[in-house]
Amino acid sequence: MQAAQIIRKKRDGAALEREEIFDFIQRYSRDEIPDYQASALLMAIYFRGMDARETADLTEAMMRSGQVLDFSGLAQPKIDKHSTGGVGDKTSLIVAPAAAAGGLVVPEVSGRGLGHTGGTLDKLESIPGFRTRLGLSEFRQVLRECGMALVGQTEELVPADRKLYALRDLSATVESIPLISASIMSKKLAEGIDGLVLDVKMGSGAFMKRIEDARSLAERMVQIGMACGKRVRALISSMSQPLGRAVGNALEVMESIETLKGRGPRDLVEISRELTAHMFLLGSVDASLDAARARFDAVVGSGHALEKLSQTVARQGGDPRVVEDYSRLPRAQHEDSLVAPEDGYLAGLDAETIGHASMLLGAGRDRLDSVIDPGVGLVFEKKVGDAVETGERICAIYSNDRTRVVRVRQMLRDVTVIAQEAVAPPVLILDVI
Amino acid sequence: MQAAQIIRKKRDGAALEREEIFDFIQRYSRDEIPDYQASALLMAIYFRGMDARETADLTEAMMRSGQVLDFSGLAQPKIDKHSTGGVGDKTSLIVAPAAAAGGLVVPEVSGRGLGHTGGTLDKLESIPGFRTRLGLSEFRQVLRECGMALVGQTEELVPADRKLYALRDLSATVESIPLISASIMSKKLAEGIDGLVLDVKMGSGAFMKRIEDARSLAERMVQIGMACGKRVRALISSMSQPLGRAVGNALEVMESIETLKGRGPRDLVEISRELTAHMFLLGSVDASLDAARARFDAVVGSGHALEKLSQTVARQGGDPRVVEDYSRLPRAQHEDSLVAPEDGYLAGLDAETIGHASMLLGAGRDRLDSVIDPGVGLVFEKKVGDAVETGERICAIYSNDRTRVVRVRQMLRDVTVIAQEAVAPPVLILDVI
Repeated sequence: MQAAQIIRKKRDGAALEREEIFDFIQRYSRDEIPDYQASALLMAIYFRGMDARETADLTEAMMRSGQVLDFSGLAQPKIDKHSTGGVGDKTSLIVAPAAAAGGLVVPEVSGRGLGHTGGTLDKLESIPGFRTRLGLSEFRQVLRECGMALVGQTEELVPADRKLYALRDLSATVESIPLISASIMSKKLAEGIDGLVLDVKMGSGAFMKRIEDARSLAERMVQIGMACGKRVRALISSMSQPLGRAVGNALEVMESIETLKGRGPRDLVEISRELTAHMFLLGSVDASLDAARARFDAVVGSGHALEKLSQTVARQGGDPRVVEDYSRLPRAQHEDSLVAPEDGYLAGLDAETIGHASMLLGAGRDRLDSVIDPGVGLVFEKKVGDAVETGERICAIYSNDRTRVVRVRQMLRDVTVIAQEAVAPPVLILDVI
Repeated sequence: MQAAQIIRKKRDGAALEREEIFDFIQRYSRDEIPDYQASALLMAIYFRGMDARETADLTEAMMRSGQVLDFSGLAQPKIDKHSTGGVGDKTSLIVAPAAAAGGLVVPEVSGRGLGHTGGTLDKLESIPGFRTRLGLSEFRQVLRECGMALVGQTEELVPADRKLYALRDLSATVESIPLISASIMSKKLAEGIDGLVLDVKMGSGAFMKRIEDARSLAERMVQIGMACGKRVRALISSMSQPLGRAVGNALEVMESIETLKGRGPRDLVEISRELTAHMFLLGSVDASLDAARARFDAVVGSGHALEKLSQTVARQGGDPRVVEDYSRLPRAQHEDSLVAPEDGYLAGLDAETIGHASMLLGAGRDRLDSVIDPGVGLVFEKKVGDAVETGERICAIYSNDRTRVVRVRQMLRDVTVIAQEAVAPPVLILDVI
C-alpha cells in the first residue's frame, strides 16, 4: 500500500491494519517514507485517534525499528518504572535502588529534561564522573552486578521514536494520547522488561493538565502493555506543586540520598514507596501491597537501598563518596530567599511556573542544546498546607548568576498563594489503574 | 511566529491571521519552511477548514509567491473561464474563441489531465506543432494579436501552488475545499483577469460527487474572487455522463471544431453557450443573458469564433489546416464498437469509468509522467435518453493497441445501463452562483 493511501485511510477515520502500521514505520525508519508523509499521518492520528489495538501495533512497530534488549539470562524479575515527567520528580533515584535492594532487576533507560520538567539523566550527571552513556554490553554487566542501571537512550534502541519525536515537536502533533503512549511504551518495552509501573503525572507541572486525559493516557499504556504480554500498572499522581522540596539537579540528588537515609519529605517518600511496592507486586516478590510497602521501608531502613545506589554510582563511573559528603556535588555560589509576605497557610505553589523559574536559573533546558548548570535550583522549606509567618523563608534560591534572581523571585512570588484559613495538603496519589 | 505555532493554532481550530498565512506561504515558497511542516498544516486545514477570509488570504499569498500578470495595457475586458475538470470537457476550445470573437480577451492558463479527467493542454497538443509553453512576452503578444491564448503554467506563475499541489497529492490532503479553491483561484487571479466564469463539475466523472460539495466549492471561489476585487460567477454542471460525444484528445479537438462550425452535440453547445454568455456579462459586453447567448450563437454562426481558433492555433505554432482537414490530426489505427445488447433507452453512462477506459486506451495519464497517445479514445453515438436497438453502436473505440480493447469494452459494458422505459436526458446546468 502506498504511504498516501495509508494517510488517507487514517484521515478518513478508519483503523489501520497491523501490516499497514508496520509497513509505514519500517519504511519511515529506513528513510524510504519522507518526513512530509509521516507528519501528515501524525496530524491525521492527532485528529482521528487510534484504537487500543492500533496503538499497540504502532508501539510494537516502533519498538522493533531497533534492538530489543533481552535480559532473560538474569533470573530476577525485570521491572521498570516510568514517570511522565514533572517538577522535582527524582523518584527514579529512590525507586530503582529500593527495587533492586528488594530483589528486582531495574534496567532503566531515562530521558533528559526539556522545558519546565527535569530529566533523570541530568540529575545523575550532576554526580561527578557519572556516565549515563553505556554500551549495551556494559549496560547488561552493570545490571548483572548491581541489579539496576540508569542509562540514556542509545542509537540502537527505538530509532523510529527518535525520528518521530523530533518530527512531532516540529509538526505540532505532540499532544496525542496514542502517539504519547506509543512513544513511551516502545522505549520501555525495548528494555526487555517483564513488568512496568507507570507514574502518570497530572496537574499544572505535568504534561496532562486534566484528570480525564491522565486517565486516558494511563489506560492506553496499560492496554499496550497487556497487548504485548507485559504486566503494567499505572498510578496517577498529582503534580500541582513540586514533588519533595528540591528542584534542581544536584539539589535533587541530595534529597534522593536523604530519602534513602530515611529522612525524605513526606510526599516524596509516599510516592516512592507506592511505586516501588507496585513493582514488587508485578515482580511477584510480594503477594500484597502492604507486604510490598513494608519491604520498601525495610530496604530503606536497613540502608540496603542506599548501598545499591552507591554501588551503581561507582559502577557507572561516579564518585560514590557523594552519598556521605554532599560537598562533593556541584554547589551554587549564591543563596537567596523567598519569604512569606504575610501570616497564613501556603495554599498553592504552581509547579509549572516553578519549573520555569528553575529553568531560568539554569537547572533546565529551554532548547534541546541548552547547557545545564547542575548546582542551581530551588529548595522549598514550606509546602502546600504548611503554616507560614511573615518573613519566614518559603524557598531558598541557589544561583550562579544573581542577575536572574530578581526575575525568579518575582515569578515565585506571583504563584505563592497564602490563605488565611488552614489548607489541607493535596492528595498525592489520585488513582491506580 | 514559528511555523509549528501556526500549525498548532490551525490544529486547535483558530482562524489564522493574514500575516501568519502570508508568512508561512512566503517562507515555504523560499524553502525556509520544510515540506513536513507544510504537510502537517495542510492536514490541519483539511480537518479544521478555513473561513472565507482565511481562504482569500491563502489564495492571495499563493498568487503573490510568483509573478502576477498585468494585461491592463489591453483595452478589452480580460475574462477567463475555468472548469474543475471532467470527462470529455473540451469547452475551453470552444468558449475561448467564441469569447474572443465577441470582444473579450481570454488569457487562459490551463492544466494537464490526470486520472480519469482530461486536460486542455493535452487536447491542444494533439494539433501538430501546437506549443502550449509560451514565455510571458509571447503570451502577451498572442493575446494582443488573437484576443486569446491557450498556454500551460509557467515557472514564474504561482510557484507556491506547484509545491503545495505536489505535496497535497502525497500527503492525502487533496480533498479540502479551501485548499482546492485557493489552488484554482491563485492560478486564475495570477492571470491578471478582470473576471472569471467557473464551471464546477458535479457527478461521477467530476472531483465533486455531491451537489453540496460542488456548491460549497463554487461559493468559496466566488467569495475569494470578490475579496480580491474580481467579478466571478460559477455554474454548477452535471458530469454524470461524458460531455459531448468524444473522449480522447484529437477526437475532442475535432468535436470542438465541429461545434464551432455549428454542428456540435446538444449538451456541449448548451454549456459552451452558457459559459461564454456569462463571460460576456462579466465583461459588460452584453447587458442581459439572452443578448449574451445570442452573441455566442452569432459568433459561431458567422464563423468568426472558428476563425479565432484557427488564428490562435497558427500563432501558437500549430497547423491551422486541421480546422478544415481532420486527417491532419493524429488518428488511431483500429476502430471497434460497443453495441447495445438489447432494445431500450440508454439510462446511464458512468463518466468516471468512461474516463478510466479512455485512460486505459492511452488518452490519459495514470501517473504524472505517463505518455499520452493523442489519437485514441471513444466516441459515443448514443447518450443518456437516446433510444437504442439491439446491435446498434453505442460507442466507437479507437485504439492503437487492440489488446486493451477487450478490457475497455468490458468496462464500458458494465456501466452502460439500458432501461425499458423512456429516460429523460439529464439536466446539464444545475445552478448558477
